[in-house]
Amino acid sequence: MTQEAGYTLGQLSEALGTTLDGDASRVVRGVAPLETAGPHEISFVTDARYRNAARTSRAGAFLAPPDVDGLPGPVLRSPSPRLTLIDLIALFHPPARPVPGIATSAVVAPDARVAPSASVGALAVIDAGAVVGEGVQIHPLVYVGPGAVIGDGSVLYPHVVVRDRVTLGRRVIVHPGAVIGADGFGYVRAGAAYRKLPQVGGVRVEDDVEIGANTTIDRGMLGDTVVRRGTKIDNLVQVAHNVEVGEDAILAAQVGIAGSSRVGRGAVLLGQVGVADHVTVGEGAVLGAQCGVAQDVPAGERLTGTWGRPMAQARRIWLAQADLPDLLRRVKTLERRLEELAARVGGEGSVK
Amino acid sequence: MTQEAGYTLGQLSEALGTTLDGDASRVVRGVAPLETAGPHEISFVTDARYRNAARTSRAGAFLAPPDVDGLPGPVLRSPSPRLTLIDLIALFHPPARPVPGIATSAVVAPDARVAPSASVGALAVIDAGAVVGEGVQIHPLVYVGPGAVIGDGSVLYPHVVVRDRVTLGRRVIVHPGAVIGADGFGYVRAGAAYRKLPQVGGVRVEDDVEIGANTTIDRGMLGDTVVRRGTKIDNLVQVAHNVEVGEDAILAAQVGIAGSSRVGRGAVLLGQVGVADHVTVGEGAVLGAQCGVAQDVPAGERLTGTWGRPMAQARRIWLAQADLPDLLRRVKTLERRLEELAARVGGEGSVK
Amino acid sequence: MTQEAGYTLGQLSEALGTTLDGDASRVVRGVAPLETAGPHEISFVTDARYRNAARTSRAGAFLAPPDVDGLPGPVLRSPSPRLTLIDLIALFHPPARPVPGIATSAVVAPDARVAPSASVGALAVIDAGAVVGEGVQIHPLVYVGPGAVIGDGSVLYPHVVVRDRVTLGRRVIVHPGAVIGADGFGYVRAGAAYRKLPQVGGVRVEDDVEIGANTTIDRGMLGDTVVRRGTKIDNLVQVAHNVEVGEDAILAAQVGIAGSSRVGRGAVLLGQVGVADHVTVGEGAVLGAQCGVAQDVPAGERLTGTWGRPMAQARRIWLAQADLPDLLRRVKTLERRLEELAARVGGEGSVK
Repeated sequence: MTQEAGYTLGQLSEALGTTLDGDASRVVRGVAPLETAGPHEISFVTDARYRNAARTSRAGAFLAPPDVDGLPGPVLRSPSPRLTLIDLIALFHPPARPVPGIATSAVVAPDARVAPSASVGALAVIDAGAVVGEGVQIHPLVYVGPGAVIGDGSVLYPHVVVRDRVTLGRRVIVHPGAVIGADGFGYVRAGAAYRKLPQVGGVRVEDDVEIGANTTIDRGMLGDTVVRRGTKIDNLVQVAHNVEVGEDAILAAQVGIAGSSRVGRGAVLLGQVGVADHVTVGEGAVLGAQCGVAQDVPAGERLTGTWGRPMAQARRIWLAQADLPDLLRRVKTLERRLEELAARVGGEGSVK
Repeated sequence: MTQEAGYTLGQLSEALGTTLDGDASRVVRGVAPLETAGPHEISFVTDARYRNAARTSRAGAFLAPPDVDGLPGPVLRSPSPRLTLIDLIALFHPPARPVPGIATSAVVAPDARVAPSASVGALAVIDAGAVVGEGVQIHPLVYVGPGAVIGDGSVLYPHVVVRDRVTLGRRVIVHPGAVIGADGFGYVRAGAAYRKLPQVGGVRVEDDVEIGANTTIDRGMLGDTVVRRGTKIDNLVQVAHNVEVGEDAILAAQVGIAGSSRVGRGAVLLGQVGVADHVTVGEGAVLGAQCGVAQDVPAGERLTGTWGRPMAQARRIWLAQADLPDLLRRVKTLERRLEELAARVGGEGSVK
Repeated sequence: MTQEAGYTLGQLSEALGTTLDGDASRVVRGVAPLETAGPHEISFVTDARYRNAARTSRAGAFLAPPDVDGLPGPVLRSPSPRLTLIDLIALFHPPARPVPGIATSAVVAPDARVAPSASVGALAVIDAGAVVGEGVQIHPLVYVGPGAVIGDGSVLYPHVVVRDRVTLGRRVIVHPGAVIGADGFGYVRAGAAYRKLPQVGGVRVEDDVEIGANTTIDRGMLGDTVVRRGTKIDNLVQVAHNVEVGEDAILAAQVGIAGSSRVGRGAVLLGQVGVADHVTVGEGAVLGAQCGVAQDVPAGERLTGTWGRPMAQARRIWLAQADLPDLLRRVKTLERRLEELAARVGGEGSVK
């Protein structure tokens, strides 16, 4: 059965390794959210919270965990429905695979090495001595600089810039417009003016990293800027020179990390977070949206707000601030009353 | 009379549909602000606030509302001088219109459809099955992905990336480096690592939307990210997957909107605002610069600051904070004095 | 002796104009930080703070100021070791100079003027009437718009966009993906909708300015956006229409400056700072990371936080805020105790 014609639930159950409650011969032709799915689509309940939305859904079938019942249709049961959803979507939307080979309009330096199974799109530029690994997809209008290395299976979307000597690991995905290996921002003052400090280090991006659209990762001054295995970086993020981001970290959109800082393994930095230079964010730390940190963050800490406070404390302060203007008035009243009372009590001198 | 030679005030008055106070034969050759305009230029008073600046201007003529008098030169009168200014500037600076046709260096897929009145610039790439409407301007080095649709009269400046299956309405303007349709940022945890959730939805941009330089609008996970008619988006803005931005909204520079959030019609988000995921910002709401909101914002609300407070309250708190360190000291003093006073009063036990 | 073979310390001392304490015949083959330098590398102590790190370094030689002693190897002495470091790195990493000439795949308009000593990389586009000065490096896939002027010795990295009529001074460096001269963000309300105000001014970037990756500098509405001599701008910065940035200013990553604002000479704006429109930031002012200012900042002021407070005050308030929730409770207690005490004192009426 082809992908356009859809799949029977029996086929899906087998392909996904799930159990099936219901009619194995029912056909679905697509995946859709609970709200919009129709009778020829399968939907998903990744969390018991969505149970009620699921019960009124018009979907023709469901993917759900074992403990969600009462669904109005056949159910594929998975103990980890979110992971199964990945495979379910991939069945209906198999990723496009460009034909291997180099577009005639691409400009590839004679001494660049492009693996036979790689594809290089229209008007891409592969500069001197660059290495493009097996199965790599270089989309149109990408620039790969001199001596850069693109690991097997990586995907560089249109308009990506990988500057000289940058190395990307395997299965790295770089979204359009991202710039890897621009000069770090380093100067030395000479009177009123600044002289540029040469930025001659590199960037090393390890396996399975994803880099968002228009994100910038600067090269090291000396030594490398490093993004370790599995880390996911969203759009418009700034990673400055000589930063090291540990494995499996998350940098959400518009995060900025200043020079020489370290982000520990598994740390999560939500949108618009700023990390000052030479700061270490510990393993597994979580920084809330717009948080700014200027000092080291211990492993596992969950901070938010200016200069990073523990989240519960930040929330308490935020609530208390609503009373602050009134508090000023109340303290003034207290001071006056106390003076009056002290005057009335009289006795052995002022209470001041 | 040509645009280089200038226009008489009579010609301008007729073309713009204004009345004229003063010499219809005077010639002006350009438009300039009050401070820099010279005797051969016309300037503008869009607001009575600028009345005084206007009175000392060297401009040869003025565009002004009916109630601004005492200007040192002839005056074109318009009840809506800002709107008239648009037409006035356009008279002196008619927008460049590239010659229709496809540059020989552009790479257009055989099955892409480019309208005869469209222009495709040097080294642009129009991928398989894309559709480029009438009068569209595709500037050099633009990438239009497979199956993308660019509506009539739209303008894509250099280095824009429109990925596969994205649809742009009519008269959409996309500034250089903007990326429309990159993958959303979605993963599923599998142990310590993250697995990528396929992002197979699209992006729909409706008519008359403007998208700033290096802004990123991600495709939906399933279903579409939507930007509705007339909305204006500034530079370096992040619009995440499955976001919906209503009609005639304003997103200023560096705003970030996280996944699945909704921004209501006519809402105004000033610079660097952050909106968390799954949040609804109501119609006509205004979020001040750098405001961060994590919960729904009612229609018409005007918020600012961390977690979004009403603007007047935020201002009062901000002012009161200046007294906070001193307040701590004063409360400590009050506590001590009260203890002393209570001790002096004595009587039936402690006041604690 | 070639750069690959390394240099003797005697050669370095002579080339750099330093004195030398130690063996002039020792050879070093590279520069490295104290922590990673090996016996065939020279390291550097730019500040007495790094003295201890230096004493345990395995580096084969050091660059240091006159007052740092006890180093475990020969020392090049410089009164300004940071400035000397620039030259030292340049000796080991001489900047790549592309061969002058125009790549065959570049598209250069017939009436554009490219100096013979300039280089234009693969698939770059130089549009009608543009002027490219002596020694300029136009990297691959760059776009230079109609009538733009690129001053002598400037470097435009891949995917830079310079729109029409923008002028860059001499020795300007523009990093990948930066966009100079996109339309400013200006509209006029017409009922619920917005009409676009034509943006027909330009951008003038003076000598020795550096512009970071994916940064955007919009053209003026009328008149120019101006970035003055020597200013350094990091990645992902937004400079809106008609802004003027003075000489030798620093704009760190993700800073945003709204329309018509002015940043004075020598001002320093740290990461993610936001400046509202029509604001003047005085000469030499320093705005801390994530600071937002909406009113003029006096020259030399050092501000941080929301609406910009003096740094020491902001820090005091931040510390005091930790006590705020408790303070509310304490004031409530004080009010109760005072009432009780007043009741006990009795006498000529309430203290209220």
